[in-house]
Amino acid sequence: MRGLGTRTVLYQESVAASLGLYNHDFISVDILHEKGPITAGELSKLTGLATGSVTALIDRLEKIGYVRRQNDPKDRRKVIIVPVYEQKEEVSNTYLPLHTAMMKLASTYSAEELELITQFLGKASTVLEEQIEHLNTTRNSKSSPT
Amino acid sequence: MRGLGTRTVLYQESVAASLGLYNHDFISVDILHEKGPITAGELSKLTGLATGSVTALIDRLEKIGYVRRQNDPKDRRKVIIVPVYEQKEEVSNTYLPLHTAMMKLASTYSAEELELITQFLGKASTVLEEQIEHLNTTRNSKSSPT
Repeated sequence: MRGLGTRTVLYQESVAASLGLYNHDFISVDILHEKGPITAGELSKLTGLATGSVTALIDRLEKIGYVRRQNDPKDRRKVIIVPVYEQKEEVSNTYLPLHTAMMKLASTYSAEELELITQFLGKASTVLEEQIEHLNTTRNSKSSPT
Repeated sequence: MRGLGTRTVLYQESVAASLGLYNHDFISVDILHEKGPITAGELSKLTGLATGSVTALIDRLEKIGYVRRQNDPKDRRKVIIVPVYEQKEEVSNTYLPLHTAMMKLASTYSAEELELITQFLGKASTVLEEQIEHLNTTRNSKSSPT
């Protein structure tokens, strides 16, 4: 699990570097892809980045066409961040070899085995999400004791 | 798989921030932990960092007591980097809640199921390692066409 974790981090960095992006910018785009359009405040909470950093991040990503700011159709007073990078050919091309290799790996397992593995990965994701929140809460309470 | 990947990256960043380390420094320590003592050149290859960056990185990590430079007992002309951070209480304390939560998750599976999951995680690690090498090779050949 730990070995896979280290490699995941290095893989993400390699992808970001290939695309000429800051690593953290790219992770934020990935979160947007997964969670769907969210507000800057929500993105700040999910990444653990300060509000000011998130604003600068969105500016950078909007400039290179990875995200778009738009009014929330459900609440016109809110601005949401919409990921638009999936249409970018350079992004899908970069991910394609990994996608192909993972599909090849998956094809060596039966449907029941894949079901078990997928279920485990989902649960491990939830555990990590809780741990991230725990770490960020601990850190913030340390840096601002009031 | 992708959701787990994003969370892994964010978790690593949270741990690094909790320990007051640069994220990339911490990943390198993790690689050292996994691969055992290696030379600066090998670390450079595994992280995709330039040799000069690796030297600066080892200086930083040595200063705060996370690694130690020493002569390779097998080849006195070589200097190897030895990870020593595992003994540091702040590191083990930071990982402890994740470790406990993952152990709890693992305990809900049978021995055969865990065997299957572990085998899959190992294979996925190998796939990622190949992809990192592929991405770094492509990038380097792009930036230096000679």
